[in-house]
Amino acid sequence: MIIWLETLMIAPLSKNLQRVRCGVLTVEIEHVDAATLEKLEQQGVDCQPKASTIRIIQDKYLQKVHFSRHGIPLPEFMQIDDLESAKRAGDLYGYPLMIKSKRLAYDGRGNAVAKSEEELSSVITVLGGFDHGLYVEKWAPFVKELAVIVARGRDNSILCYPVVETIHKENICHVVKAPANVSSKIQKMATEVACKAVSSLEGAGVFAVELFLTEDGQILLNEVAPRPHNSGHHTIESCYTSQFEQHLRAVVGLPLGDPSMKTPAAIMYNLLGEDEGDRGFDLAHQLIGRALCVPGATVHWYDKPEMRKQRKMGHITIVGPSICKVQNRLDSMLNKEKFNSQSAVTPRVGIIMGSDSDLPVMKDAAKILNMFGVPNEVRVVSAHRTPELMYSYASSAHERGIQVIIAGAGGAAHLPGMVAALTPLPVVGVPVRATALDGVDSLLSIVQMPRGVPVATVAVNNATNAGLLAARILGASDANLRARMSQYLEDMRDEVLVKAEKLERNGWESYLNP
Amino acid sequence: MIIWLETLMIAPLSKNLQRVRCGVLTVEIEHVDAATLEKLEQQGVDCQPKASTIRIIQDKYLQKVHFSRHGIPLPEFMQIDDLESAKRAGDLYGYPLMIKSKRLAYDGRGNAVAKSEEELSSVITVLGGFDHGLYVEKWAPFVKELAVIVARGRDNSILCYPVVETIHKENICHVVKAPANVSSKIQKMATEVACKAVSSLEGAGVFAVELFLTEDGQILLNEVAPRPHNSGHHTIESCYTSQFEQHLRAVVGLPLGDPSMKTPAAIMYNLLGEDEGDRGFDLAHQLIGRALCVPGATVHWYDKPEMRKQRKMGHITIVGPSICKVQNRLDSMLNKEKFNSQSAVTPRVGIIMGSDSDLPVMKDAAKILNMFGVPNEVRVVSAHRTPELMYSYASSAHERGIQVIIAGAGGAAHLPGMVAALTPLPVVGVPVRATALDGVDSLLSIVQMPRGVPVATVAVNNATNAGLLAARILGASDANLRARMSQYLEDMRDEVLVKAEKLERNGWESYLNP
Repeated sequence: MIIWLETLMIAPLSKNLQRVRCGVLTVEIEHVDAATLEKLEQQGVDCQPKASTIRIIQDKYLQKVHFSRHGIPLPEFMQIDDLESAKRAGDLYGYPLMIKSKRLAYDGRGNAVAKSEEELSSVITVLGGFDHGLYVEKWAPFVKELAVIVARGRDNSILCYPVVETIHKENICHVVKAPANVSSKIQKMATEVACKAVSSLEGAGVFAVELFLTEDGQILLNEVAPRPHNSGHHTIESCYTSQFEQHLRAVVGLPLGDPSMKTPAAIMYNLLGEDEGDRGFDLAHQLIGRALCVPGATVHWYDKPEMRKQRKMGHITIVGPSICKVQNRLDSMLNKEKFNSQSAVTPRVGIIMGSDSDLPVMKDAAKILNMFGVPNEVRVVSAHRTPELMYSYASSAHERGIQVIIAGAGGAAHLPGMVAALTPLPVVGVPVRATALDGVDSLLSIVQMPRGVPVATVAVNNATNAGLLAARILGASDANLRARMSQYLEDMRDEVLVKAEKLERNGWESYLNP
Repeated sequence: MIIWLETLMIAPLSKNLQRVRCGVLTVEIEHVDAATLEKLEQQGVDCQPKASTIRIIQDKYLQKVHFSRHGIPLPEFMQIDDLESAKRAGDLYGYPLMIKSKRLAYDGRGNAVAKSEEELSSVITVLGGFDHGLYVEKWAPFVKELAVIVARGRDNSILCYPVVETIHKENICHVVKAPANVSSKIQKMATEVACKAVSSLEGAGVFAVELFLTEDGQILLNEVAPRPHNSGHHTIESCYTSQFEQHLRAVVGLPLGDPSMKTPAAIMYNLLGEDEGDRGFDLAHQLIGRALCVPGATVHWYDKPEMRKQRKMGHITIVGPSICKVQNRLDSMLNKEKFNSQSAVTPRVGIIMGSDSDLPVMKDAAKILNMFGVPNEVRVVSAHRTPELMYSYASSAHERGIQVIIAGAGGAAHLPGMVAALTPLPVVGVPVRATALDGVDSLLSIVQMPRGVPVATVAVNNATNAGLLAARILGASDANLRARMSQYLEDMRDEVLVKAEKLERNGWESYLNP
C-alpha cells in the first residue's frame, strides 16, 4: 500500500500508519511536517523521498545553503533579519532585488521583488515581515527559465526528462514548452546541473529542478521540488512514461520507465483561477470549449472545490509534430477573435529559388507535394541579390515548422549550399539549366559541397524528383506518407506496363504511327 | 449525466432512469435487451447509438442481411435451420465452412469451423444446436484481418482511425498492429467500406468495423461492434484522442477529436486468462514484470473479479518509432529465454556499397552517424553482381525499421538509383571515384535519375556528407537530433574561427611555416 500525502499536516495520520500496513510513504507537496516524517522513519516507515530531503526543500533558504555547499551553481543569496540587513543586501546585490519567504512559498506566494531601496519596507510587509524568515537573492538576469524532471529509483538509477522551457507570469507558471528551444550544449548543461542537484538529496521519486539560463549562457539552479511538478504535466500526453507513473515506479522500486518524448513537441497552458466565485470560470470555460476543437489538445480540469484568483484550476496540453505547430494551435485557441479550429496549415516544405525565372522548373516540386498532400510554400530568395533575406529565411525555417528546404538555382548556383550552411534541416538542391554550359555549371556548384555541409542534389531541372525526395524524407518518420510513396511507385509501374502491353499487342510500327 | 451500460439486462434499470436525470444512454456491449432500449427511446431517453443499431448488431445474421442490403461487400452467408440445410450450405460454399451463432457471440464464443461434411453435426452440437439460431458463412480466404474504428458525432460528422491489422488465435483477438502494413490503396478501400457500413446504422458513438483482406485484394466486412473495441485499445497511448474519449465526445455531442496517431507505430497484446483460479496469473504476471522494462510499453490490468481461460484480463500496448521496432520489443518481451530490456538496437540507416573496395570511402558515413548516435548497419550489396540481394535488401528495408539508405558506387554506378526504384525510403547516393574519369562517371550515373525516382546525391567521395544528410533527414522529425546538428554547425564555425584568429595573430608566413 502506498500512502500519498496531500495534506499540510501529517501528525493525525501518524497513528493510523501503524494500524494499516503502509508499504511506502510519499508526498504530493513538500509542505508537510518534516519532524513527524522523521519520527515515522525512526519507527520504520519507508518514506520516499527521505524526510531529510523534505526538511531541506521546504525551507528555501536551507535549500540554497544545501545546494551551495554541494557546488551547484546558484544566484547569490543571503538571509535578512531586519530592514538594515535587507538594505545591506540591496547595496551588495543591487536592484531589482528578489525577496523570498523561507517557508510555505508556493505558486508565486512568498516571492516579491523590490525595485529600489525605497520599496524594501513595503515588500517585506507584504511578505509578512521577518517573523517567518526571509532571505534575498541577487536578481538573475535570465534569458529563459528551464526545468528538468529527474527520476531516481530506489536502486539510485537516475533518468532525466527532456529539458523544458517554463514561462512565468506574475511568478506563476503560465506555459511550459517541451522540448526547450535551446542548443544541445545548453540542454546538456541543464541536465547535468539537475542530476547533480538531485544526487545531493536522499530517497527515491521524481524531482523537478527549476533553472535559469543567463544572458552569458550559464545555468543557475532556482529551486527543486521533491515530487511531480507543473513543469512535467505535459509528460502525460507527450512522453512514454508520465511523471506520475514514474514517481510511483520510483518509490515502490519498479524499474524506471522511458522518459523520452513520444511526440516531437508539447506545450502546456495552465488554467488559473480568475475572480472568486462562479464568475471565475468564464475564461476557463471558453478555453476548454475551444480546446475540444484543437487537434492534439487534452483538457485537464482538477475539479478543485474552491476557485481562487491565480489558483491552478486545470491545464491544457497540446502535442504535435513541431513546437511551432503546437504554438500556433495554442495561439489560435487563446485568441478569441481569430479562433478557427481549422487554423492555417503550417508549411512543412519550403521551396525557394534564386529568381522567378526558375519558377517554370521549380513549380513541379510544389505540384508533387500538393499531390501527396504535403503543405508547402514557394518563395524567391536569392543568395546573391537578397543575402539578408536568405540568411533570415534559412536560419529561422526550422523554428517556423519547415522540415525540408528545396532550393533551385542556376549558373553559379550558391543558394542550396548557402542555405544548407545556415540550417540544420535537410536541403534538396535542384540545378536549373542556365543559358550556358547546359546545366553542368549549376549541377557542380550544387553537388560538390565541402565536407560538413551536405546538399541532396537531384538531376538538372528535375524539380519533380526534388518534390518526391522531400516527400520521402518526411515519409522516413511517417508510415502513412511512406505507404503513399509505395503506391506512387506501383502506379508508375502499372502505367509503364500498360504501354508495354500496347507495344506488344500493336507492334512497334503502329505504336509509333497510330 | 451519461449512463454507460455494462450489464446484459437493462430492464431493472428502466425504472431508475426515470428517477435520475439521464442525459444520454450508451452501451458498453451490444448484448443488452434491445426491446427495453426501444421502450426507453419511446419514453424520450436519448440512446446513442440508437436502439435500432443495437438490435441489428446483436443478431449477427440480421447484421449480415442489413449490410448486404446496403451494398457492403461481405462473405456469402445463409441461415441454417437443420442438418439438411447445413449440408446444402456445405455443398454450395465448400469446406472449411464457418458456422456461427446468431446471438451472444463474443470473443470467439459462438463461432466454429467444420472442416468437412462429417464434422457438421458435432460442430453444430458444440454451438448448442439450432434452438438459438445458426447461420453459415463461406470461408473467406483472407490474407489479413483488418479493423477500422469509426467515430460519428451527433451532427453526423464522421472520422476514421488508421486501419489496423488484427491477429486472432483460436478466434480471439491476440495482437493488434497499428497502422496495418498494407498499401495506401488497401487502407483507402478499408476505410471506405468501414464508413459505408457505419453510415447505414443510426446514432452517435464509436464503431469498430472488422474486415477481411482477401488474396485477390478485396475488402470484405466481417462484423461491426457499436462501441469502443479491443482493436482500438492502442489509441489510449498512440492517438491524439483515445477511442474512449472519442465515444464520450460523440454521444454527448462535443466536437470529435483528432483520431490520427501521435506515435508512428503501436502494437497491442492481449493478456488472456490461462487456467481457472490463481495459477492462471503466472504468465500474465511474468509478462507484466517484463513489460515494465520495455521502452514504450504500458500495462493495462482490468482487475476483473474472476479469471477464466481465454478471458481478456488485460492488455499491454507498446508504442514506438516504427512497427518493426515495436514488434522487436514485443518479441523480446514474450521470449523469456532471450528477454533483455536493452534489446538489440534496430539500425535506422543502412549504408550499402557495390564492393568492399568502396569501404575506405563509405566508412566516413558510419563514423558520422556513430558520432550522432544514430544506429546504422554497413553492408556490401552490388547491383550488378548480387541483383537478387539488392532486390530483397531494398524492398524490405523499410519493414526492418531502416529509415534512410546511403548507397555508394563507382563507375556505371547503378546501385543508388536501383535501390531508390525499389523502396519508398529516401536514398542518399555517394559517387565513388573509380579508376577512370575522376568520378564524373559515378556522379552522373547517380544524379541524373529519371523523373519519378529521386536519389539525393552528394559530392564525389564525400560519404561524410552522406552521413550528415542522413542525420539531417532523421532530424526533420526529431528535435533532439536537429539540435545536435545545429551544435555541429556551431562547432565547425568555432574551429574555423580559431584558425582564423591564429592566422590574424601570427601572420600568413608563420602560419604556413610554424
